[in-house]
Amino acid sequence: MSQIFDAAEVRKHNDESSCWVILYGSVYDVTDFLPNHPGGRKIILRLAGQNATEEYDPVHPPGTLEEYLKPEAKLGTIDPDTLPKEEAPKEEKHLDNGPPPLDSLLNLDEIEQLGSKQISRKAWAYYYSGGDDLVSKRLNNEAYRSILLRPRIFIDCEQCNTETTIIGCKVGLPIYVSPAAMARLAHPTGEAGIAKACSRFGALQMISNNASMAPEQITSDAQPGQIFAWQLYAQIDRKKSEDMLARINKIPSIKFVVLTLDAPVPGKREEDERSKNVASGLPIISAVQSRSASKPTEGGGGGIGKSLFAGTSPNLTWKNTLPWLAQHTKLPLVLKGIQTHEDAYLASLHTPQVKGIILSNHGGRALDTAPPAIHTLLEIHKYCPSVFQNLDVLVDGGIKRGTDVVKALCLGAKGVGIGRAPLWGLAAGGVEGVERTFEILSEELKTAMRLLGASRVADLNMQHINARALERQIYDGPAGFEKVGMWVSSKL
Amino acid sequence: MSQIFDAAEVRKHNDESSCWVILYGSVYDVTDFLPNHPGGRKIILRLAGQNATEEYDPVHPPGTLEEYLKPEAKLGTIDPDTLPKEEAPKEEKHLDNGPPPLDSLLNLDEIEQLGSKQISRKAWAYYYSGGDDLVSKRLNNEAYRSILLRPRIFIDCEQCNTETTIIGCKVGLPIYVSPAAMARLAHPTGEAGIAKACSRFGALQMISNNASMAPEQITSDAQPGQIFAWQLYAQIDRKKSEDMLARINKIPSIKFVVLTLDAPVPGKREEDERSKNVASGLPIISAVQSRSASKPTEGGGGGIGKSLFAGTSPNLTWKNTLPWLAQHTKLPLVLKGIQTHEDAYLASLHTPQVKGIILSNHGGRALDTAPPAIHTLLEIHKYCPSVFQNLDVLVDGGIKRGTDVVKALCLGAKGVGIGRAPLWGLAAGGVEGVERTFEILSEELKTAMRLLGASRVADLNMQHINARALERQIYDGPAGFEKVGMWVSSKL
Amino acid sequence: MSQIFDAAEVRKHNDESSCWVILYGSVYDVTDFLPNHPGGRKIILRLAGQNATEEYDPVHPPGTLEEYLKPEAKLGTIDPDTLPKEEAPKEEKHLDNGPPPLDSLLNLDEIEQLGSKQISRKAWAYYYSGGDDLVSKRLNNEAYRSILLRPRIFIDCEQCNTETTIIGCKVGLPIYVSPAAMARLAHPTGEAGIAKACSRFGALQMISNNASMAPEQITSDAQPGQIFAWQLYAQIDRKKSEDMLARINKIPSIKFVVLTLDAPVPGKREEDERSKNVASGLPIISAVQSRSASKPTEGGGGGIGKSLFAGTSPNLTWKNTLPWLAQHTKLPLVLKGIQTHEDAYLASLHTPQVKGIILSNHGGRALDTAPPAIHTLLEIHKYCPSVFQNLDVLVDGGIKRGTDVVKALCLGAKGVGIGRAPLWGLAAGGVEGVERTFEILSEELKTAMRLLGASRVADLNMQHINARALERQIYDGPAGFEKVGMWVSSKL
Amino acid sequence: MSQIFDAAEVRKHNDESSCWVILYGSVYDVTDFLPNHPGGRKIILRLAGQNATEEYDPVHPPGTLEEYLKPEAKLGTIDPDTLPKEEAPKEEKHLDNGPPPLDSLLNLDEIEQLGSKQISRKAWAYYYSGGDDLVSKRLNNEAYRSILLRPRIFIDCEQCNTETTIIGCKVGLPIYVSPAAMARLAHPTGEAGIAKACSRFGALQMISNNASMAPEQITSDAQPGQIFAWQLYAQIDRKKSEDMLARINKIPSIKFVVLTLDAPVPGKREEDERSKNVASGLPIISAVQSRSASKPTEGGGGGIGKSLFAGTSPNLTWKNTLPWLAQHTKLPLVLKGIQTHEDAYLASLHTPQVKGIILSNHGGRALDTAPPAIHTLLEIHKYCPSVFQNLDVLVDGGIKRGTDVVKALCLGAKGVGIGRAPLWGLAAGGVEGVERTFEILSEELKTAMRLLGASRVADLNMQHINARALERQIYDGPAGFEKVGMWVSSKL
Repeated sequence: MSQIFDAAEVRKHNDESSCWVILYGSVYDVTDFLPNHPGGRKIILRLAGQNATEEYDPVHPPGTLEEYLKPEAKLGTIDPDTLPKEEAPKEEKHLDNGPPPLDSLLNLDEIEQLGSKQISRKAWAYYYSGGDDLVSKRLNNEAYRSILLRPRIFIDCEQCNTETTIIGCKVGLPIYVSPAAMARLAHPTGEAGIAKACSRFGALQMISNNASMAPEQITSDAQPGQIFAWQLYAQIDRKKSEDMLARINKIPSIKFVVLTLDAPVPGKREEDERSKNVASGLPIISAVQSRSASKPTEGGGGGIGKSLFAGTSPNLTWKNTLPWLAQHTKLPLVLKGIQTHEDAYLASLHTPQVKGIILSNHGGRALDTAPPAIHTLLEIHKYCPSVFQNLDVLVDGGIKRGTDVVKALCLGAKGVGIGRAPLWGLAAGGVEGVERTFEILSEELKTAMRLLGASRVADLNMQHINARALERQIYDGPAGFEKVGMWVSSKL
Repeated sequence: MSQIFDAAEVRKHNDESSCWVILYGSVYDVTDFLPNHPGGRKIILRLAGQNATEEYDPVHPPGTLEEYLKPEAKLGTIDPDTLPKEEAPKEEKHLDNGPPPLDSLLNLDEIEQLGSKQISRKAWAYYYSGGDDLVSKRLNNEAYRSILLRPRIFIDCEQCNTETTIIGCKVGLPIYVSPAAMARLAHPTGEAGIAKACSRFGALQMISNNASMAPEQITSDAQPGQIFAWQLYAQIDRKKSEDMLARINKIPSIKFVVLTLDAPVPGKREEDERSKNVASGLPIISAVQSRSASKPTEGGGGGIGKSLFAGTSPNLTWKNTLPWLAQHTKLPLVLKGIQTHEDAYLASLHTPQVKGIILSNHGGRALDTAPPAIHTLLEIHKYCPSVFQNLDVLVDGGIKRGTDVVKALCLGAKGVGIGRAPLWGLAAGGVEGVERTFEILSEELKTAMRLLGASRVADLNMQHINARALERQIYDGPAGFEKVGMWVSSKL
Repeated sequence: MSQIFDAAEVRKHNDESSCWVILYGSVYDVTDFLPNHPGGRKIILRLAGQNATEEYDPVHPPGTLEEYLKPEAKLGTIDPDTLPKEEAPKEEKHLDNGPPPLDSLLNLDEIEQLGSKQISRKAWAYYYSGGDDLVSKRLNNEAYRSILLRPRIFIDCEQCNTETTIIGCKVGLPIYVSPAAMARLAHPTGEAGIAKACSRFGALQMISNNASMAPEQITSDAQPGQIFAWQLYAQIDRKKSEDMLARINKIPSIKFVVLTLDAPVPGKREEDERSKNVASGLPIISAVQSRSASKPTEGGGGGIGKSLFAGTSPNLTWKNTLPWLAQHTKLPLVLKGIQTHEDAYLASLHTPQVKGIILSNHGGRALDTAPPAIHTLLEIHKYCPSVFQNLDVLVDGGIKRGTDVVKALCLGAKGVGIGRAPLWGLAAGGVEGVERTFEILSEELKTAMRLLGASRVADLNMQHINARALERQIYDGPAGFEKVGMWVSSKL
Repeated sequence: MSQIFDAAEVRKHNDESSCWVILYGSVYDVTDFLPNHPGGRKIILRLAGQNATEEYDPVHPPGTLEEYLKPEAKLGTIDPDTLPKEEAPKEEKHLDNGPPPLDSLLNLDEIEQLGSKQISRKAWAYYYSGGDDLVSKRLNNEAYRSILLRPRIFIDCEQCNTETTIIGCKVGLPIYVSPAAMARLAHPTGEAGIAKACSRFGALQMISNNASMAPEQITSDAQPGQIFAWQLYAQIDRKKSEDMLARINKIPSIKFVVLTLDAPVPGKREEDERSKNVASGLPIISAVQSRSASKPTEGGGGGIGKSLFAGTSPNLTWKNTLPWLAQHTKLPLVLKGIQTHEDAYLASLHTPQVKGIILSNHGGRALDTAPPAIHTLLEIHKYCPSVFQNLDVLVDGGIKRGTDVVKALCLGAKGVGIGRAPLWGLAAGGVEGVERTFEILSEELKTAMRLLGASRVADLNMQHINARALERQIYDGPAGFEKVGMWVSSKL
């Protein structure tokens, strides 16, 4: 029978010599686990001796405790009467007369505004943040705005069909959900809520390696024909990734694996780092404590982003990764984070294992001043257009309007990912908020297609756009194919 | 003898099962008409059981009731004593000491500022709004500002003559009134007031298909030599358009028909949509009601713009439209909404039926990021300058100064349309406000011509401008003539 | 003996039927003169029956009354005791602790700021204003800022000599005073005060045709070697200009005549027009009065600018002007307001009568969006560099820094004019204010030359600058020499 | 035995006829020294008769009194009891709860913000200021932001090594401290404090000719392998420079001499000049006094910058300088302030004496609108890439982020200097503040290298960047090699 602890007793175990925490009513001794916590020891020590459930829950999928802690770490249960009453009620932002009805929100910016008000500062900072000065995050959007459209007249556009295929799968929209972590920070329905919204629009959802729910949970209510992909951050401990792939292989609605490559180390997301001590419901650690606890070399600590990256492998190469993956899954592979024509071309040499690439600068969250996906799309047209024949090219980053989607499609993208937008939708109104997000984008997409004179996705082509402003900006140096050639000849 | 109703009785018929409204003192049963209302059923249901005259009047030309309702729909008359006294006086914005005298307004921006204050939020939103983020609306104006002028010296410019011809008609100014709907939202004199102001300047007026007055009313006081054109939105129910054309054919001062092609479906005008529930003098429907009344898929409802578009045909093609029109009118045809050199060229293959084209992005109200007319003008110079020989090329969108007019003329435009400006003038001061608008623009035009060294419109040419900033921005892809050729060979 | 009038009697003569004004203690009947007033009748009627001295004085050089009024118009003198005491003290802006010392002002912007505070709103508006939206005024300055300098190292710049020659005259600085009207609005010392400041720096001063002092007054204290030029606006009544030229020919320190050609009609200067009713010390005419007094066609009245232009000839041509001028002066001629390479080239065909040209858009006060002088300078380099051999090329507009001066000189300008700057200096501190203006600019000029590695004006050349940003913007069309050729062959 | 003075007695000697000051408790008669003060007489007269220690100390290295004053100038000591108690406590800006902990500062802007608050207005103005309108200062930074990065994928970046060599010396970082004067204005530890921070990162420090500490002091705690350079402003009195070189030759950790050439005369730094009368703890001299004391021709006085420049030789040439230097030091020479490809090429002809060049516009503090170093770097690539073979090319100016460093290195720079940043760090937190500055930059540098796919400095190359925006902006005129050739053939 499990021992029952008094909160005062637990409170004594509050440092590296003995560190206990309360989770879901149980008491755990995590002293030995401290050095192994993927998110770093500091984040645990801040909660040492306390009830950490509220902090822990939205960022860990079920099964995490079992995966990381030995059974003997669970010491017993807490006597709930001894827990302090919540003195400071959880930080909540009440809107004056309740939130406005979702259908009064007319565009993605308004959904972001509402969503930003509904969630904790910490969650906002994690979603909103980008690398350094947010140059790439801003450029992602501005690049689309700098492309002009060329509407044709006297085209029958009574019918407008947004269906298409992505990596061989039929989808209702060329808009998909990019893999983004920690949806439960926005709303308790989390990634499963996003899945439910996707089902209404036939939209593909890519599940993050760092989702706050297990992939089995997220996909459990998949509708017939609804499809998913799963994102892999290869772990330093490859066994962990292999175990996950084994689970993924068993989920029939997951159709391909997305290997993210643009973030071998985390970018510097200052908003996220700034919020590290601002945990909902928790006292902010005094500056003095914080200072003594951190070695100066740690460079400002890290927010959720840095915690999530812990354990991710920084040493992937063409040679050491693709064959390993082939051993562990038969699913098609999509490489995410391609930012140069050179790498797009290299990827195209790895069919049939690699079926697609995602041009992405990680939503401006990795290397600041990295190019918007739409730059890379133009680069491929300029240097190695054959890539479009060999691979499905997807893009993400900066999409706010149906016209943005149309422009990417005109330039040859097969699909367009949205990452933050579904999270803002989830924050604004749960499942219905994500649905509203899709509804707005798909209506805008149809309007744009009709006004351009395109009744099917396949009708869109480069004569529908004037991208001259961007053409002047993209890379104009040597093609780098010699180097590519060398790599190829050495079998990479 | 007509039955007399008590307002309390009418008030009971306030939903889809039985929907009555009071208009001009009469009571109508519009239950059966609900599904056929071009503007949608919601806008009527909001006024069900009430006196709808104030809402109905400024947006419907006379004859509308007769056209759409069967005689038996008219149930009788209302007992005026039973109508509620207006509790909330009609929203009106009193300026502190009355509006400033019109001749203290020095430019079109100042007229817009004053006009914006004089009208309801709803009317303002309808006039002001543009697609999505107003990128095209802004570009329309900025494109002109980015062109520099090249004034010549030692030219006698004592005389300055602004007369010219448009589609074979003599006009006093190269500036005309673009077709814009709902002038009575600005001022009771409506489109007829604009006509009166035009007569003083010899300016051509294009009458909107959605004018708030009948074309016969608008043209009834035409002065000798005063000319008009009539804009056609071909209706899904072609018979309606044919009937209108028959009426137009009988009005001698209407010299040609303008077929608008850039808006087969309405653009997304958020300001307009946002104002949908803000009707002057009417209570704003509570959020809850609004939410339950609308299916989420309807995407935010629609403002005046969307209502007006109801019934407009989205499936016009070269093949199915031009021959049909030829059967119903002998008037010359002008195609409005050309936004690519390809379509300009195609249009030029359809003389003599087509006599002109209007380069337009619908004032930035249709597809956002569509190109300013001045871009398309440059495109035609680059790809198919012969168009200027075969057709009169007109432009609209973004004109705020006499120098803007001059720049369009230097680039080969035969006339320059202003759409919102006369409405702001009407709002600012009725007929005199529109006159002031023309007065400012024509004075600025003459000053610009003189300072450039041009005494006649025909003197203006491309050596008077430096459009290099724009030349760098326009489309630079393939000409698309092959495709054009194909279309031609298949007889379109 | 002169009759003595009571102010009450004068006040009765306050409309077009009988219009008297008091000037310098005398009473004049200007009824007959009303239609002939170069500035328009309205401006006089506003002061009818009143003491107009304060309004009249700073904008009319001595001799004006005698020139325009017949002797019998002078009716007598006013009894000063009957004049009303000034109820509203003259609009004056007291600075809290007096103005800051001039040598605490570090740049021309700070002088403008101080000067703006020291003068009436009306004077400020006249000086500050530019055409339409001030696009050219802003571009004038931004064009210089967009040029980068290329400083060389290891050059001995202990000595730095700013002397040079302009139209064959030795000057201490390559910076001269552009002809600008109405200096007495800024300070009682007026144009003579500017002359005094120029003498300290050996700077050339061009005297405006519309100076508020007679050229004889302005030049009366000229120092040995001090030089002037005189600006001519050819009058419709050519006799007036001929009389002035006769006077100019007699002033030895005036070395050449500047014929202004970029303003055959006045530009639209809205700030100036807006201030028309804001006369210092005078009540603002009520809106109603103003409205009834002006016909709507007059387009917003006019400020000082429009008044000054009255009488200026709008029909000058190469043919009718140069020979006429040759008959009336032997002084060299400089053509001001050249804005295209075509006209620069044409001017170069008229040596030796024409000795120089001034590239100018009239300080952005004539045609808005006309090119900055620096654009035209680059155009000449591109299309007809021989002009630099045949003529002295001067520029004005937008100069705020010594680096701006240097850039114009590097591009081949022989001198650089400042127009508003001396007026702001005069407003800020009279003669000393203008001196401070020159002191700042000449110090900045020397610093820039030294840091570039140039010890003499002649050392500056095109390798000292990177004007690539501008090169991309200038006119790129056909050279227009055919047309020029045609004009030449027809002897213009 | 030294005489003891009463403060009242000293106070009488307060003008040019007899000028005494108190320094470190001693009384000096500086009347004869007034005309020889390198910083000008005014700055001393302002403190005449007073205790000047607080003003004097942070801007003069030890030994200065002995160097400039004759022994007999020291009159005796002050009776400390007669000195006035400090009435106005020294200007200090208390932050509400003390400054935030250094590791909460996430980037260089935040360090600058904190540092700016911790120091006097005068020190801030000296550090912050740039030439004229700060165009070059701003461009320095914006130029980096306009370069986009091209991250490669599938590269093993587990290891990341920032070591490299500069002028043959091994360093831990490609980031070095640029020579910047007056570090003790920021913090008492001054330049020695910066040296201490450098030692932790293996960073090279260039010591300013105008350091507020003697080079022997700064280098006295050098760690094994720690290296320095010494900056020379050649003095008009060459003997002074020769004496300094003799001292420098004896300091083993100083590895090369940096000769600054971009500031033969001081730039116009308005913030600095504006603060001249705002000395900490001193009353501001009244405007009247100030005005009478300065001749108008002095042009606004000068701040710290101008004082420091006094005595600097403005007449250096290739011919008169390099041979002279060769006589006085065997240390390698680096030329600082190269701003054109012409001078870079010329420098490359002077190996082996010249080993490197620093492309610099003096942090935007010399000639405004001079090109950013990154422009010059691109110019060299375009016109004379051989320079990179012959010389180490260093750059400074505008560095705020690790990505900026990476971009300069990709373009061929061997090292990147930071000038203001270590001073802001020193101001923000003394030695630890400078350490935090290096820590942030070096972490950002490593993150950027890893995300680009570069594990060593040598891996970075031009295919890692897209500098097209800049390429469009750099100089495009003739190469100037003819002139160079001419100079060479004449042996310079």
